[in-house]
Amino acid sequence: MASRICDSVLVTGSNRGIGLELVHQLVNSPSSPLQIFAGCRDPNGPKAQELQELAQKHQDVITVVQLDTDSVTSITEASKLVEARLNGRGLNVIINNAGVNIPGSLAETGKQEMVDVYTTNVVGPMLIAKNFHPLLCKAAAQFPHQTSMSCSRSAIINVSTLLSSITRCPENFSRSPMYPYRVSKAALNMLTRCLAEDFKKDGILVMALHPGWVQTEMGGPQAYLTTAESISGMMKVITSITEKDSGTLLDWEGNNIPW
Amino acid sequence: MASRICDSVLVTGSNRGIGLELVHQLVNSPSSPLQIFAGCRDPNGPKAQELQELAQKHQDVITVVQLDTDSVTSITEASKLVEARLNGRGLNVIINNAGVNIPGSLAETGKQEMVDVYTTNVVGPMLIAKNFHPLLCKAAAQFPHQTSMSCSRSAIINVSTLLSSITRCPENFSRSPMYPYRVSKAALNMLTRCLAEDFKKDGILVMALHPGWVQTEMGGPQAYLTTAESISGMMKVITSITEKDSGTLLDWEGNNIPW
Ligand SMILES: NC(=O)c1ccc[n+]([C@@H]2O[C@H](COP(=O)([O-])OP(=O)(O)OC[C@H]3O[C@@H](n4cnc5c(N)ncnc54)[C@H](OP(=O)(O)O)[C@@H]3O)[C@@H](O)[C@H]2O)c1
Ligand SMILES: NC(=O)c1ccc[n+]([C@@H]2O[C@H](COP(=O)([O-])OP(=O)(O)OC[C@H]3O[C@@H](n4cnc5c(N)ncnc54)[C@H](OP(=O)(O)O)[C@@H]3O)[C@@H](O)[C@H]2O)c1
Repeated sequence: MASRICDSVLVTGSNRGIGLELVHQLVNSPSSPLQIFAGCRDPNGPKAQELQELAQKHQDVITVVQLDTDSVTSITEASKLVEARLNGRGLNVIINNAGVNIPGSLAETGKQEMVDVYTTNVVGPMLIAKNFHPLLCKAAAQFPHQTSMSCSRSAIINVSTLLSSITRCPENFSRSPMYPYRVSKAALNMLTRCLAEDFKKDGILVMALHPGWVQTEMGGPQAYLTTAESISGMMKVITSITEKDSGTLLDWEGNNIPW
Repeated sequence: MASRICDSVLVTGSNRGIGLELVHQLVNSPSSPLQIFAGCRDPNGPKAQELQELAQKHQDVITVVQLDTDSVTSITEASKLVEARLNGRGLNVIINNAGVNIPGSLAETGKQEMVDVYTTNVVGPMLIAKNFHPLLCKAAAQFPHQTSMSCSRSAIINVSTLLSSITRCPENFSRSPMYPYRVSKAALNMLTRCLAEDFKKDGILVMALHPGWVQTEMGGPQAYLTTAESISGMMKVITSITEKDSGTLLDWEGNNIPW
């Protein structure tokens, strides 16, 4: 049997779209983690049914965790629940996938739109990194001291986008202005880079990952990739990244995207 | 006499630090603008005294404008006042200088800190660009159609920082983590790049400018540059930039900083 991707992983926003397919492919992989924490802001709502059915089918592996990444209380409670379930072990990987986008020409963008999108796309991942840091440290410390960084040891993957690239903005701005989204995801890249520096001493890898343009509610039906295609690429990247990839932005095929 | 830098300019956060020195050097330049709008959030407060004295001395040029860049109402009111004072002419240049920084290790950073710093450093410049856009367009249109972009025609200068560079973050992160500030200024760079694309059709140049490490309340007394040194460099950059510099981040000596 293939060696496990990692022992434990938390995926935020896992009730639909990219997050749900991530949980699908993780649990169905021959190298499935032992524990998958599926974060979801409304676990009993209608939008969580598919996730609940999947969790039911894999009760030994998947734990659905109430997790609204806009809420400090929800994040704190989730970290306590995950800690209890890990039973003394650390948490290996967090995939900060929960995110929002809204129409965003300058005319459509006001203070509220800017702050709301920033709160979910940047402040959420920051608070999750901060609150789960002790559990990530614990996982990293369970490896021999000289082990280099990897997802099997301890890592944060922030789901970013090509549209976060300031360098490449002129190529795609006119097709999709998306002020609040682009600005928030560039900010998420800086957060990623700061965390990568900050957590290096703890053996925690931190990187940003662009899933491609994917058929989800956010991506729309005209997107190039199915969730299956995107996530199978992302899984290859996640399992192959090493120390040198910490603090970078890669796409689902492993190509580097400039800041 | 030297040709004027521009006919009119608005400087935000101009009651102290870099903003105040900008107004000083602008009004004392042999090529001084005809109208300088000095934005200040509390024009009658104790921190605005030096600015008020300067404005008193140059009553024909300087108008102190109440402008709290966190407040949508204040920005709207300020744009109306500036429009009235311009008496049918456009506004050539906006220098988005108002900004905040706070201690910012991960331990010191919560949701409120992230949102507050983002609001001033990013949402403010976005709202100012949006509200003053018609006045900038009017200034740009007063030039013959083929004229290329420049500060004498129409421009937005966003005051950014070396610490906004995601590329260069590993060089300086450990000395000054500053999560909310770094993340917000990287976001400001993306805003700059988006606005540069968006306003290109109107003939409005948009760029980001790093003033250097400057002796102000924010920079502290140990900073390398006096405000006089920093702003004399910034003035040279502002008066020399052309179309090719739109959408870039330069420092006070005109050097490009990578995203
Ligand atoms: N699709 C693409 O083409 C594409 C391209 C580049 C990057 N991305 C990124 O990929 C990630 C996932 O996108 P997607 O396409 O799967 O989008 P999606 O179909 O709209 O799904 C978004 C997911 O995030 C969750 N979410 C939103 N706000 C949340 C909050 N405050 N707390 C917890 N969960 C929250 C949603 O939960 P609810 O059901 O409760 O709303 C949902 O599960 C995002 O970060 C997005 O920016 C997507
Ligand atoms: N100093 C440096 O070394 C350095 C380096 C790189 C970049 N910068 C950037 O340069 C700019 C100016 O910095 P500084 O060093 O002059 O800082 P400072 O001495 O702290 O002055 C900040 C100015 O911004 C104003 N301000 C803050 N929030 C405001 C708001 N909501 N509405 C209106 N005005 C507001 C302040 O007004 P009040 O008096 O009302 O508070 C003050 O006039 C900032 O954008 C900063 O990020 C500075």
